[in-house]
Amino acid sequence: MPRYRLLVEYDGAAFVGWPRQPNGLSVQQAIEEAASRLNGGAPVASAAAGRTDAGVHAAGQVAQIDLGREHPPERVRDALNFHTRPLPLAVLDCTRAPEGWHARFSATERAYDYVILNRRAPAALDLGRVWHVPVPLDHGAMHRAAQLLVGRHDFSSFRAAECQAKSALRTLDRLAVTREGDRIRLHARARSFLHHQVRNIAGTLAQVGRGRWSEADIAAILAARDRRRAGETAPPQGLTLLFVGYGPPGDGAAADQTPNAPSTSR
Amino acid sequence: MPRYRLLVEYDGAAFVGWPRQPNGLSVQQAIEEAASRLNGGAPVASAAAGRTDAGVHAAGQVAQIDLGREHPPERVRDALNFHTRPLPLAVLDCTRAPEGWHARFSATERAYDYVILNRRAPAALDLGRVWHVPVPLDHGAMHRAAQLLVGRHDFSSFRAAECQAKSALRTLDRLAVTREGDRIRLHARARSFLHHQVRNIAGTLAQVGRGRWSEADIAAILAARDRRRAGETAPPQGLTLLFVGYGPPGDGAAADQTPNAPSTSR
Repeated sequence: MPRYRLLVEYDGAAFVGWPRQPNGLSVQQAIEEAASRLNGGAPVASAAAGRTDAGVHAAGQVAQIDLGREHPPERVRDALNFHTRPLPLAVLDCTRAPEGWHARFSATERAYDYVILNRRAPAALDLGRVWHVPVPLDHGAMHRAAQLLVGRHDFSSFRAAECQAKSALRTLDRLAVTREGDRIRLHARARSFLHHQVRNIAGTLAQVGRGRWSEADIAAILAARDRRRAGETAPPQGLTLLFVGYGPPGDGAAADQTPNAPSTSR
Repeated sequence: MPRYRLLVEYDGAAFVGWPRQPNGLSVQQAIEEAASRLNGGAPVASAAAGRTDAGVHAAGQVAQIDLGREHPPERVRDALNFHTRPLPLAVLDCTRAPEGWHARFSATERAYDYVILNRRAPAALDLGRVWHVPVPLDHGAMHRAAQLLVGRHDFSSFRAAECQAKSALRTLDRLAVTREGDRIRLHARARSFLHHQVRNIAGTLAQVGRGRWSEADIAAILAARDRRRAGETAPPQGLTLLFVGYGPPGDGAAADQTPNAPSTSR
């Protein structure tokens, strides 16, 4: 069966997340139902690089669908966009996948942004896209503490209880905290992440930004390998899956694969 | 009566525009009703620098309210934000206005961005914030044609039929068209604008971007002083009032007055 690779953007507020769920519309269901219209009504199986949670956005999710016969990739893209209207979901690109390629298992790099709106006034234009933290946060302190998490570590303190990964060992390649005006952006890159890892890191670094925890506290939390030691899980709407890479890991080539991804601030 | 100057952000989708209307909730009504809670229930009059239309957003609208007695400005800001919940409206800053200052009549500069999402796929994360134009637009040609509109001209070809300004003479200080990935941004600055002026310019320049009209056509349209000659009125959701300046016009100081305004690409 021919496999197609999709570059997908969506507003997480409209979905219960990527994976199918009994309690509402998932991105996976929306794409599979649209794809089945292209497939003579036969069901279509899909998979995605990032199993985003309810409320989490994607600017550059990568997914796959297997269709019963060959179609021009542009036609697959246009048909999926037509059949998913008016959902806030867009297939930006579609290509024929190479033999043996898998959207999830072939991925070598994933990048997320977590955005905090750090001002007294509530969110208006960014409502549903940011975590509003009204007390001032020291983003420099957050960045310094973040560097303690970069590298290969057991991230048990930052994984959700329901995380299904066999091991909590992950290599965080980059974790940068920058500020532009009212917005604090955490940019995280790794081959793969644990469930809630970025949101748990964001919630923990926010405590550093408030001055409640020091760098030493972050080192101790990481070493404890105990989820109860870290901070709260930051809310989903601040998180966006920016891009997924399939090249050699860490060579930065991944960014080329999502021409639409917002330029990351460095 | 003490006058307060407000810096206001809102998502235009939730409102029928700034001015009060019989057919729905306006930003003006939302602010005046919240302010009246601060004012012992007595009605409060407000005014704004930009009378934004239904669907038009603001990142840095400036408004005024007159209250019956003095209040700490921070308390005015917080109370307005509290009483306008959960509307997508935020009072970012509040200061006591100097004697004789008027939000609308003292303004010397207004800046708007009009954003076109120029890609085949529909809008998802930017839904409600952009005009989606699926055919490729030549932003360089749009920028060159835009320069013919810069300066002091009779903009009758670009004003709405219902525009109430006595004269169609306006001085457009800046009109820049830039592209970042899929997004084409028109940045317009002037002391003041005619009704629908930016949206009519955007709709007209889009025809240049498609290759239907040349620079000579734009010059002829401007010279004709006839609204029927120009292009369509681009939809409201692509437009955002970025900032309002009260300093000497054209000195660029206006940008300092809205710390939240997105940095303009130059």
